[in-house]
Amino acid sequence: MKIALAQINPTVGALEENAKKINAYINKAKKQGADLVVFPELAITGYPPEDLLLKPQFIDDNLSCLKDIIKQTKGIGVYVGFVNRVGKDLFNAGAFIVNGKIIKVYHKNNLPNYGVFDEKRYFKEGKDSAVVNFKGMKIGLGICEDIWVEKGPYKGEAKAGAKIILNINASPYHVGKINERQKVLGIRAKATKAHIVYVNMVGGQDELVFDGGSMVINSKGKLIALAAQYKEELLIIDEKGGNISPRLGILEEIYEALKLGIKDYVGKNGFGGVIIGISGGIDSALTAAIASDALGNSNVHTVFMPSEFTAPQSREDSEIVTENLGVRMDVIPINEIFAIYNSSLATIFKGRSADITEENLQARIRGNLLMALSNKFGWLVLNTGNKSETSTGYCTLYGDMAGGFSVLKDIPKTLAYELVDWRNKKKPVIPKSIIDRPPTAELKPGQKDQDTLPPYDSLDPIIKAYVEENKSAKQIVAKGFDKVTVDRVISMIDRSEYKRRQSAPGTRITKRAFGKDWRLPITNSYR
Amino acid sequence: MKIALAQINPTVGALEENAKKINAYINKAKKQGADLVVFPELAITGYPPEDLLLKPQFIDDNLSCLKDIIKQTKGIGVYVGFVNRVGKDLFNAGAFIVNGKIIKVYHKNNLPNYGVFDEKRYFKEGKDSAVVNFKGMKIGLGICEDIWVEKGPYKGEAKAGAKIILNINASPYHVGKINERQKVLGIRAKATKAHIVYVNMVGGQDELVFDGGSMVINSKGKLIALAAQYKEELLIIDEKGGNISPRLGILEEIYEALKLGIKDYVGKNGFGGVIIGISGGIDSALTAAIASDALGNSNVHTVFMPSEFTAPQSREDSEIVTENLGVRMDVIPINEIFAIYNSSLATIFKGRSADITEENLQARIRGNLLMALSNKFGWLVLNTGNKSETSTGYCTLYGDMAGGFSVLKDIPKTLAYELVDWRNKKKPVIPKSIIDRPPTAELKPGQKDQDTLPPYDSLDPIIKAYVEENKSAKQIVAKGFDKVTVDRVISMIDRSEYKRRQSAPGTRITKRAFGKDWRLPITNSYR
Repeated sequence: MKIALAQINPTVGALEENAKKINAYINKAKKQGADLVVFPELAITGYPPEDLLLKPQFIDDNLSCLKDIIKQTKGIGVYVGFVNRVGKDLFNAGAFIVNGKIIKVYHKNNLPNYGVFDEKRYFKEGKDSAVVNFKGMKIGLGICEDIWVEKGPYKGEAKAGAKIILNINASPYHVGKINERQKVLGIRAKATKAHIVYVNMVGGQDELVFDGGSMVINSKGKLIALAAQYKEELLIIDEKGGNISPRLGILEEIYEALKLGIKDYVGKNGFGGVIIGISGGIDSALTAAIASDALGNSNVHTVFMPSEFTAPQSREDSEIVTENLGVRMDVIPINEIFAIYNSSLATIFKGRSADITEENLQARIRGNLLMALSNKFGWLVLNTGNKSETSTGYCTLYGDMAGGFSVLKDIPKTLAYELVDWRNKKKPVIPKSIIDRPPTAELKPGQKDQDTLPPYDSLDPIIKAYVEENKSAKQIVAKGFDKVTVDRVISMIDRSEYKRRQSAPGTRITKRAFGKDWRLPITNSYR
Repeated sequence: MKIALAQINPTVGALEENAKKINAYINKAKKQGADLVVFPELAITGYPPEDLLLKPQFIDDNLSCLKDIIKQTKGIGVYVGFVNRVGKDLFNAGAFIVNGKIIKVYHKNNLPNYGVFDEKRYFKEGKDSAVVNFKGMKIGLGICEDIWVEKGPYKGEAKAGAKIILNINASPYHVGKINERQKVLGIRAKATKAHIVYVNMVGGQDELVFDGGSMVINSKGKLIALAAQYKEELLIIDEKGGNISPRLGILEEIYEALKLGIKDYVGKNGFGGVIIGISGGIDSALTAAIASDALGNSNVHTVFMPSEFTAPQSREDSEIVTENLGVRMDVIPINEIFAIYNSSLATIFKGRSADITEENLQARIRGNLLMALSNKFGWLVLNTGNKSETSTGYCTLYGDMAGGFSVLKDIPKTLAYELVDWRNKKKPVIPKSIIDRPPTAELKPGQKDQDTLPPYDSLDPIIKAYVEENKSAKQIVAKGFDKVTVDRVISMIDRSEYKRRQSAPGTRITKRAFGKDWRLPITNSYR
């Protein structure tokens, strides 16, 4: 039997376009002689459709797209994800269609309702496993979470004689996820003595990136086919096995996730290009590099906005980076604007000395200029804040936090350096002077990040323990960190919730980002 | 038997303070001779604790607070909400404590996971109903949602002989909710032939307001005691019944919800006061009135920020409102700042005519000035956008949307007029000239809201149908609205998701606000 794994990139809500894409892949699979073609979870609606699922019309429209797909299945079997409705209940479902007829609808048994997932908000749990007879072979059906749980439907399906288990997914990326998947699938394959055909979605959707990497594990637990990461692909497998794509290294994997995150946010939302405030620091340089790699240099615009506190080196370095990347850099000084704000506020501020107010004001002037460029030219503002800043609130609301998409939102500062290093190895674009210079916001004379924050190499692991692992202060100190520092960092994180609530979305690459998987109250007295 | 309903206002995460408050109310109840005192759902943690529940230390700390409470129960029965842990599982639980000993722990059977609720993210469902024998009386236990569902535990409890059913709540307000509650409780009381003791929380928590209104319904379905709305209270009931507080009218109910929403956001987050950009329009006038009523006039500051497009009437009206309210008004003109931005951008914008860019820029200058005042004086910025604007995106990100709390976020423009009218009847504060003048953003010459938006009296019902009722365009047109208008409004709503994602929290007063109950993807091609 020849099976095609259709690793496609649907767009949430683009029901008709998604159906067209599915039909195109069905035809491609037919041409390659496939007996069966398998699509991702909720391939028709895109994932996650979120509260679109509460619109009855949306469900109807998805069902009518399924009908169109059914018509394309002459001479081939198709397993495709859609939203089913039975009475008033919705199900995250898979239709097994053969020759113009649905022969089985499977309802996802295990609905994730943790992390970034809210499936119990929308769906009822299916109760039954499902085995279909197809061309003399018994095939078990499943969807995503079903294969991750101990008591998944695959058990019953294997008992009923299934030799192939189809598991369709919209499995979001985090660092190393592909290895976790392979490990679990290997265990399931050995336990069931069945081949596991694991089809993942690919593409960016707001904060999530689906990384592809669809795979087939044989009944002995061995990987016998692997689709590319971050790309659409029709992977064909038969008795002899299939192609095994090379696996990306960790840094490349992250870099590609960020690229796809921007590319699909910009593309699927129809922006003509992006604008980045470039400062001479490492974050904006890295953001510009990723954007340029993702969108092409002609679609990336940068603006350098010096103040009286900006060192000449910042401009020189910004020029080198933008020249290396071949992206446009405009210059708009903010001194005069800043001066007028100060004089406008002088009466009200009388008798009070300069403080964080004036620092934030500069950041917000830059935010305004970026938004003006966005409004005038239709460019999306990419903000350049990293996870270390977003965690501690070392960033200005409506200032450097302004923007439609936050490329490095889930990238700790130390990882930003590693990514720059990795990118420079491919082709040097970010000069050593940016890498070597101590990080500074340049909002007052002689300012350095480390005046306010602990050194990044101790800050970042504290953030990881608190944010990603829900560790208490006590537990983090027990790991060997200084108590005063730990308490200070945790307090900064807790007190910054109001800023994060108004932050732009950004690509998730860790097990816990500041997105749907982080739901902390703003009003919160727990310390 | 004398039962005390302790309608308290805990703060999320303030475990020890909440426990202290609970202990104080236990002592108050003892002094009034109560046999039993009943506290709200999750009274120890506050509601909703959200992802604090994922911190093991938080659960431990809540359990140790429960121990402190147990010590206070000599000579009295207490039913109080807390988070229980059994193995690795968490339960939304109620402890029935008598004389220093827990005699029963009830686990909530029905976990809401819709609307603003995410309880299945955290809790496992309890499976059992619970009846306790207390002073010769059989009492059934339940928590919130348990009383709303057809197959709730109250059924089994009544069968087992319960004559009183305790139902403890953190039930968020929306318009008319108190009547819905009384209706359901009446049905349950008649069906079970038991008294229903319904204890609600009171207080503001980010976007939610718990409105109190705890009540007792007798076994014939009659209301025999009602606590005040929006206030802490210890309501005592015995065989002769209890006090029945007067019920607020709809507009007063909404106005009080908005007041409590601000008051608790400001108070629980420790702000010294608020700052409002006052424009001469109805929204900022209403916001100032509510803030002043909630916080006292000395804690409310306003700033008038005229541009070249500001009519003299705007200033006069702003002066009248602030004088009537007794709140400070500063004036900072933005002309010069605006001029410098324009000249700074002139080279890049060369050959392009003025458009929305310049309008947004003015709004963002005002946003920056408000934030500067906030930074310098520690005042919370209240933004003044209403639901009609937030829905259609008729508002500027980082401009008039800037702020920590959005008072009118869930108030449609037409309702804002009704609230002004209601407030003026108590004591006239907002002059007729503000009410009669056609709404304008004053961002370009002769601008009126109705140049861009349909008239509010047709816009608002379309928004309600689409946002609150998930109606399709077709269904809304069938109600008698113009198709072109409906399509245009829906398209504006859909395209503004990116703005709402970065908007400040604001008090929810409808069945669906733009908060936790609105989870739409930004990247969304469904039309």
